[in-house]
Amino acid sequence: PIHPHFCPDLHIQDPASQRLTWNKPPKSVLVIKKIRDASLLQPFKELCVFLTEVKHMIVYVEKKVLEDPAISGDENFATTTKKFCTFREDLDDISNRVDFIICLGGDGTLLYASSLFQESVPPVMAFHLGSLGFLTPFKFDTYQSQVNQIIEGNAAIVLRSRLKVRVLKENWEKKARVDEKGIILTNGDIEGSRKAMQYQVMSPPLIRTLIFKVIDVYPPGRLKALVRVIVSTPTGSTAYAVAAGASMIHPNVPAIMITPICPHSLSFRPIVVPAGVELKIMLSCDARNTAWVSFDGRKRQEICHGDSITITTSCFPVPSICFRDPVNDWFESLAQCLHWNVRKKQNYLGSEDEEF
Amino acid sequence: PIHPHFCPDLHIQDPASQRLTWNKPPKSVLVIKKIRDASLLQPFKELCVFLTEVKHMIVYVEKKVLEDPAISGDENFATTTKKFCTFREDLDDISNRVDFIICLGGDGTLLYASSLFQESVPPVMAFHLGSLGFLTPFKFDTYQSQVNQIIEGNAAIVLRSRLKVRVLKENWEKKARVDEKGIILTNGDIEGSRKAMQYQVMSPPLIRTLIFKVIDVYPPGRLKALVRVIVSTPTGSTAYAVAAGASMIHPNVPAIMITPICPHSLSFRPIVVPAGVELKIMLSCDARNTAWVSFDGRKRQEICHGDSITITTSCFPVPSICFRDPVNDWFESLAQCLHWNVRKKQNYLGSEDEEF
Amino acid sequence: PIHPHFCPDLHIQDPASQRLTWNKPPKSVLVIKKIRDASLLQPFKELCVFLTEVKHMIVYVEKKVLEDPAISGDENFATTTKKFCTFREDLDDISNRVDFIICLGGDGTLLYASSLFQESVPPVMAFHLGSLGFLTPFKFDTYQSQVNQIIEGNAAIVLRSRLKVRVLKENWEKKARVDEKGIILTNGDIEGSRKAMQYQVMSPPLIRTLIFKVIDVYPPGRLKALVRVIVSTPTGSTAYAVAAGASMIHPNVPAIMITPICPHSLSFRPIVVPAGVELKIMLSCDARNTAWVSFDGRKRQEICHGDSITITTSCFPVPSICFRDPVNDWFESLAQCLHWNVRKKQNYLGSEDEEF
Amino acid sequence: PIHPHFCPDLHIQDPASQRLTWNKPPKSVLVIKKIRDASLLQPFKELCVFLTEVKHMIVYVEKKVLEDPAISGDENFATTTKKFCTFREDLDDISNRVDFIICLGGDGTLLYASSLFQESVPPVMAFHLGSLGFLTPFKFDTYQSQVNQIIEGNAAIVLRSRLKVRVLKENWEKKARVDEKGIILTNGDIEGSRKAMQYQVMSPPLIRTLIFKVIDVYPPGRLKALVRVIVSTPTGSTAYAVAAGASMIHPNVPAIMITPICPHSLSFRPIVVPAGVELKIMLSCDARNTAWVSFDGRKRQEICHGDSITITTSCFPVPSICFRDPVNDWFESLAQCLHWNVRKKQNYLGSEDEEF
Repeated sequence: PIHPHFCPDLHIQDPASQRLTWNKPPKSVLVIKKIRDASLLQPFKELCVFLTEVKHMIVYVEKKVLEDPAISGDENFATTTKKFCTFREDLDDISNRVDFIICLGGDGTLLYASSLFQESVPPVMAFHLGSLGFLTPFKFDTYQSQVNQIIEGNAAIVLRSRLKVRVLKENWEKKARVDEKGIILTNGDIEGSRKAMQYQVMSPPLIRTLIFKVIDVYPPGRLKALVRVIVSTPTGSTAYAVAAGASMIHPNVPAIMITPICPHSLSFRPIVVPAGVELKIMLSCDARNTAWVSFDGRKRQEICHGDSITITTSCFPVPSICFRDPVNDWFESLAQCLHWNVRKKQNYLGSEDEEF
Repeated sequence: PIHPHFCPDLHIQDPASQRLTWNKPPKSVLVIKKIRDASLLQPFKELCVFLTEVKHMIVYVEKKVLEDPAISGDENFATTTKKFCTFREDLDDISNRVDFIICLGGDGTLLYASSLFQESVPPVMAFHLGSLGFLTPFKFDTYQSQVNQIIEGNAAIVLRSRLKVRVLKENWEKKARVDEKGIILTNGDIEGSRKAMQYQVMSPPLIRTLIFKVIDVYPPGRLKALVRVIVSTPTGSTAYAVAAGASMIHPNVPAIMITPICPHSLSFRPIVVPAGVELKIMLSCDARNTAWVSFDGRKRQEICHGDSITITTSCFPVPSICFRDPVNDWFESLAQCLHWNVRKKQNYLGSEDEEF
Repeated sequence: PIHPHFCPDLHIQDPASQRLTWNKPPKSVLVIKKIRDASLLQPFKELCVFLTEVKHMIVYVEKKVLEDPAISGDENFATTTKKFCTFREDLDDISNRVDFIICLGGDGTLLYASSLFQESVPPVMAFHLGSLGFLTPFKFDTYQSQVNQIIEGNAAIVLRSRLKVRVLKENWEKKARVDEKGIILTNGDIEGSRKAMQYQVMSPPLIRTLIFKVIDVYPPGRLKALVRVIVSTPTGSTAYAVAAGASMIHPNVPAIMITPICPHSLSFRPIVVPAGVELKIMLSCDARNTAWVSFDGRKRQEICHGDSITITTSCFPVPSICFRDPVNDWFESLAQCLHWNVRKKQNYLGSEDEEF
Repeated sequence: PIHPHFCPDLHIQDPASQRLTWNKPPKSVLVIKKIRDASLLQPFKELCVFLTEVKHMIVYVEKKVLEDPAISGDENFATTTKKFCTFREDLDDISNRVDFIICLGGDGTLLYASSLFQESVPPVMAFHLGSLGFLTPFKFDTYQSQVNQIIEGNAAIVLRSRLKVRVLKENWEKKARVDEKGIILTNGDIEGSRKAMQYQVMSPPLIRTLIFKVIDVYPPGRLKALVRVIVSTPTGSTAYAVAAGASMIHPNVPAIMITPICPHSLSFRPIVVPAGVELKIMLSCDARNTAWVSFDGRKRQEICHGDSITITTSCFPVPSICFRDPVNDWFESLAQCLHWNVRKKQNYLGSEDEEF
């Protein structure tokens, strides 16, 4: 696109071009299993035996997974569990010790995997055991050949962006110290004299959704609206945002979604800004009460007058391994999860003739 | 974002970072004026005198603009018009002769400017004369200092992506040859033996919207839906798409929007795919009648069984010059055009208490 | 509700209270069969034999139904067909000769049954052969006992309101005379001197939907909006209107729905007015082209500048016989047709936690 | 609509036909003023002087209104206040002592007026002081002539239906006794042996909206949905319900609206049932937490497992006096409150051409 005097550059990437490439063969794998789901026990054991005994990989498993009597009490499985590396959430750092991750059991396992890694996330291979999920493209039936292909580096990747959220609290001495699990507290060092009064709360980057009650949104500029709002990644578009009227956005689109929940003004519609925008959110001055923010449905925090929340796209996405490729996998998950294949509807909601 | 064994690369660009840079000082300018709008005559003349007499630039004006008696009959303006370079739409090629473009008179002028350039488009500075539009950020009051700043290269740019649309017609010999203005006909050379029977129709890249009646959409794969559909760029999101329930997407987001119009299935919602995806659209086999497609609201074409339409993002965007910067300009246009500043609504549609 | 000085009367009717009551035992029955659907042949024959030979009723069947070779050529069925009373649509008046109606084959058959009766409509018993429809509550399996119950008057009734539509055309002499099937033409007698130039077009009352392209709506007063619009009965709410964002309204609610299609103004939402309101619709003065109106998806008519359309609730509803009762039948049809019983969705679109 | 064998009766009432008729001339008037709004002081005093001194009516005013120093300290107004009848909310019963009501100050005053009357409500004349509200049609400028017309019985009436809500609590002994203002507690007498364990909570009939968090809705039968839901009268349709996607329903339509808030299933849309239906709402068995219900935005109550809420249309509506008539007043309020008269929007959201 050469123009004689001015040459803008529009870089358009084919979403199918991102592929998994190993610098050296993967040796260690973190296996995440949804706890308290008996139907996952057998697949979990089979998979671990395969990874440990056949592929000779180092398998990481969270300690509390092994505390399940159905696992710890299984003598046949004891030989395998002995070879596991175990860790405790929030206490042991495994961020540089895992080559890739295998999830068993629904979209929530991917959210959990993401929460374990503040910065770089290893590639994630997610199996659905029951019906296809939005984030779990692999079927377990043929797990052996599929894991082999991943180990050989034969797979497409979709980079799911995450949100980096910084909460700046005013007047922290007057409040109980926040010490929720997994939230790091640091003394803010932002504005000289007020330093002692502030602290920052950082959560692990969010893969899906922040939900706010009654706030002002300040995209670098001027939007002000007294509303409840969902801020989400494209991966989060198929979660609560779509129920609030958002479009469904492919995870490869570099964007942040801002979706009002039942807004007072009918013309305040869902908006989508580039991934590079920094959003600042504060409690509206008109708000009579404090607000709450929910992080990926896992944690909540109160927002008081004077507090502010800054949201940007993290530069550490979650590399999700594709079953076929980023576009096909996504349409397949929409079709399955939203029942696009159920044709009966089309007979009832008006006919072609009625539309003209 | 370095991971020991796998390093995905998430490139996040600050939308404010794209700026107008001239390789050499601009010399020629195309002035586009909405025709048949008397209120634009005085600003048009003032601007042209300024560009010609003060800035000594070569001014391009379309021939039919000068045919207006209010311009051709104005003796005071004759000295200026004599210095114009004129051209006729569809006949004269000005693609490499214009350094930048100035539009006077509403969002439609930017669509028109875009349609004049099949490939690289010069930067466009768009003035709204009445109220602010989605695509026309500049006020005319201080046009002199603003034009000076552009000439000095002191401005931010937003690259508005365009859609490249290719219509492949079957059985062209049986049909009247399409010769609509601005549409180029070529013999297709795609599939050996059927070659003689096919031709392609190419329109100039679209800046906003394609609207289809009753079709199947095939994103590389499998979505099938018997619907009317809007395919649009993010620039087109604030046009007809938003009325059909689409989100409003910032023009810097590299994406293509697919918005169904009153779909039969309530779960077929607006979707957004990466700019690099190639969409293929065909008339549904179930469709009893032929379909129609509308190009940027300017042209229409019939789609018959067997025809197919391929849509991709053009690599020739429209560089729109910003008044402030890409993010502020966009929120300002939304706030103005959608009346977000009218507070009264907020009093009536439920109170904060009701929401709890 | 007695107030000392003012006694407003709010009459609230239990929708379950309307029941079928015969003044004398029903003797004649009209059987409507969707044509060109082979799967209906066997049920149709069975039903007719039962009604004729077992119940000794007079069965009315449309002539064109019997022209199907699969019926006229069936020797075993000939004894029964000989006893039929036949009629031709638009030519023979059966309005006072039929005691009740049985429909076989989908929602369209009820629309068709309605179109045969300008004024009073006999009670309609509608069977779905495949999957449950919005308007067809009866299963065919146990048709004998169900028909017996209807004949005994043991059934609840829902009165489906219909729309009475009057089109007043200007300048009719300049136009081709409208003579579409089933539309009655009369010389208008409304405004003295212009009388000769006008005529009225009356269609049979509509049970579902009128769809307009680009019009002004004038509820007795002042709403003006340049839009495409759907005017429908509550029975029509589950047809094209719901795809355009309307609520689903129970057929017992005495109301007329006005639903804009992709309106220009985001605050022009679907509205619902009392059944007693008279709507007047005209082509917008701003409209550059003529408009079209579609009647129940069966007929269309062009609307020119100067024409007007008046819409009221007809005082001749369609009495639909319920399978259980008006409320249960309706929720059952929504649940079936909209897949409310498919629970998988609920797992994916956000969790309870995310909502807080 | 006479059919030989079956005569369904469709009663269609003209909404303009309901008019205010006094059995004997009105003598007493309740004046409701929004408290803590200084702009209302002058109109309030003027009106009270007019009613007391000129019309010689008995004026009822709530005690706390007179506690405002700007009223109690105004010596010029003291002669008038001395003639007032005063009462205290929840303590003094004025239900049979007031002939009509005048509201000053916004939609909330009508909700408040309604809450004072459990059963029959006197006619209400509501003035908007600032901009037109959905429920306040009268301008204050010409209040004298307008009040005179009401006293003469020269006005149309719209009967705004109210919701009657009964909460049946299980296990009340284990819980703190509910004694919220205005809620009457009685021992339930419904099911023999469990009697001692239950009590009913009755609120005054609601004119607008009940909002539920996470519940099951049981219309007499079977709809089950794990959602947050708004149950409202047509008067409530323009409040929070419209923000959640409901249609705007004229107050004369006898109906109850059920509007899900961001439902998990995209096909669970707003539904409207006849006014005579009784809804039963319980906490979903799947719900991990208790739920909350908000009554007209004024009170809240917790809903636990085992509790149930029954909702019907109260037979005591609020008779609202119209400025012109029920239909014109309603369209006028929509046009004003939703800015339908602001034409600029129409220029931007797509053109007629784009729609085709």
